[in-house]
Amino acid sequence: MDFQLMCPRYEKAIQTLARRWTPLILRALMERPRRFTEIRNYVDGLSDRLLSQRLRELEEAGIVQRKVYPQRPVVIEYSLTEKGAELRQVIEAVQIWAEHWVALEEMDLSPSAG
Amino acid sequence: MDFQLMCPRYEKAIQTLARRWTPLILRALMERPRRFTEIRNYVDGLSDRLLSQRLRELEEAGIVQRKVYPQRPVVIEYSLTEKGAELRQVIEAVQIWAEHWVALEEMDLSPSAG
Repeated sequence: MDFQLMCPRYEKAIQTLARRWTPLILRALMERPRRFTEIRNYVDGLSDRLLSQRLRELEEAGIVQRKVYPQRPVVIEYSLTEKGAELRQVIEAVQIWAEHWVALEEMDLSPSAG
Repeated sequence: MDFQLMCPRYEKAIQTLARRWTPLILRALMERPRRFTEIRNYVDGLSDRLLSQRLRELEEAGIVQRKVYPQRPVVIEYSLTEKGAELRQVIEAVQIWAEHWVALEEMDLSPSAG
């Protein structure tokens, strides 16, 4: 694969995928469809407002789809489209790299712990 | 691979990797070491100030290394460490996805193009 020059498709993909919270929201949806509050609970620190905004962006990008079940109370589920599901390769590559290279112990070695 | 629950290593990796400009800077370094101005030219729209800041963050994360050649004028080159080089799987996965799913024509279909 040739990375000699920038690729506009890569640039555009990154604009969508690397927004704050988005890689965490995508991970939440890899396993199965989830409701809004399930996603918010999965992603620690994410506000309702930003989750709404990101889900809307991902819908517009054709990565996430929203399904409304007209029961009482109404159930709304978010899931990955085919385009979104194919991001599994990306999410898995990040996970593999993180397991190999990211040390959590650093967090415990703060001066105050000493 | 199990994505049922969030993984703190994944979260921490994303904090570093998904910052604005970082995925583009990493792509610039995949092929070979580059000088500061080479990276800035590779990444369209990136300012000197933000490039400095991102390179410093990537150095602190052990992903990029800075090498000074004491000639005249001094040459400074940035390259990936082993930890950084192993991000190739991630960058390639994004590239493959982008080539399959990202349409650039959308950009030309604005109403003004009529």
